[in-house]
Amino acid sequence: MQNKNISVAVIKRLPRYYRYLGELLAHDVVRISSKELSEKMGVTASQIRQDLNNFGGFGQQGYGYQVEYLYTEIGKILGLDRKNRLIIIGAGNLGMALANSMSFEKRGFEFAGIFDVDPKVVGKNVRNHTVLHIDGLEQFLNENPVDIAALTVPKAQAPQLAALLVKCGVNAIWNFTPTDLNLPPHVVQENVHLTESLMRLSYKKRAAEEEA
Amino acid sequence: MQNKNISVAVIKRLPRYYRYLGELLAHDVVRISSKELSEKMGVTASQIRQDLNNFGGFGQQGYGYQVEYLYTEIGKILGLDRKNRLIIIGAGNLGMALANSMSFEKRGFEFAGIFDVDPKVVGKNVRNHTVLHIDGLEQFLNENPVDIAALTVPKAQAPQLAALLVKCGVNAIWNFTPTDLNLPPHVVQENVHLTESLMRLSYKKRAAEEEA
Repeated sequence: MQNKNISVAVIKRLPRYYRYLGELLAHDVVRISSKELSEKMGVTASQIRQDLNNFGGFGQQGYGYQVEYLYTEIGKILGLDRKNRLIIIGAGNLGMALANSMSFEKRGFEFAGIFDVDPKVVGKNVRNHTVLHIDGLEQFLNENPVDIAALTVPKAQAPQLAALLVKCGVNAIWNFTPTDLNLPPHVVQENVHLTESLMRLSYKKRAAEEEA
Repeated sequence: MQNKNISVAVIKRLPRYYRYLGELLAHDVVRISSKELSEKMGVTASQIRQDLNNFGGFGQQGYGYQVEYLYTEIGKILGLDRKNRLIIIGAGNLGMALANSMSFEKRGFEFAGIFDVDPKVVGKNVRNHTVLHIDGLEQFLNENPVDIAALTVPKAQAPQLAALLVKCGVNAIWNFTPTDLNLPPHVVQENVHLTESLMRLSYKKRAAEEEA
């Protein structure tokens, strides 16, 4: 599966297609037309055809997409066919929410450990994992390489912890801290800036009220 | 302040500008050039000039942006100059993480209540608010109108709770459930689909490994 020519915009939309295709598969849907899928997803049929024709799985006109084939191929593009071991740095409410989320495991992400500095949470049990002290992180990573680290610590601690993770071979950081991490080029990051998301909602609300 | 001609792409980037301008302001920076700001933010100076010239605040060449003016104007565009009362539906780990986040209040969002169905959490105290039973939501909203509701409940409960919120006059939903809500046109939503974010990170990691 080549993805050299797939645009960033299409890639951004893939997880949503993957989610809808997964729901269809769970309901034993074998094929779906771009028209039906467009009604479900609230995007135009022509957008769907443009996006999904990047991945094949489109039979003759009027036949529709093969749901399982497309689901599998998009999963490969997203790297979901591999084992993705994930640790969580920060066992506050947000870190605990991530640790308790079953939905990641359905996508093949394996919860491999959780770390904190707070003596009140170190030693607690979460989904068969004990919250470990951050002082043991380096040794843990030497013995148990992981693919992804979620960072849910206060902003002030984020840069040094990100540097430690990178030093220990973690090449993908899921950054929940309200700051942009300055990482080496081989390390990828995905930011979840919740306050920015809330500001976008506030903008939409204000704009909708002015239009009304 | 007119925003009719500002593109969606610029609007999406505004919260990030707002964050950086707020940090500069906190460090008593009065003016900043597009070049300096571009180095901080990791985007080109020409992108910054294109984006921020939508909002004025640009003096003569070589003078730079007036930090406080731009911060205030962007805040108005984002609706942060008004009171935004926010309730949280779902007092699991994620709902509790949102309730405990001070960073929203710095942006003028007021935490106004939190609701759940679970007898184990109803009655608990969070930042001077008692977790209330969801059965009291309708009466609460009649007596205490709110601007925004964060929805952090299981996917299966999301549609009916969203409908109840809309019925009670909530016009902005911050949706953390892994589903797209079907809302009337006057209601705005902002989705935080964490599993999709994790898939995008997984994609970036796979793509980076193939390039290496």
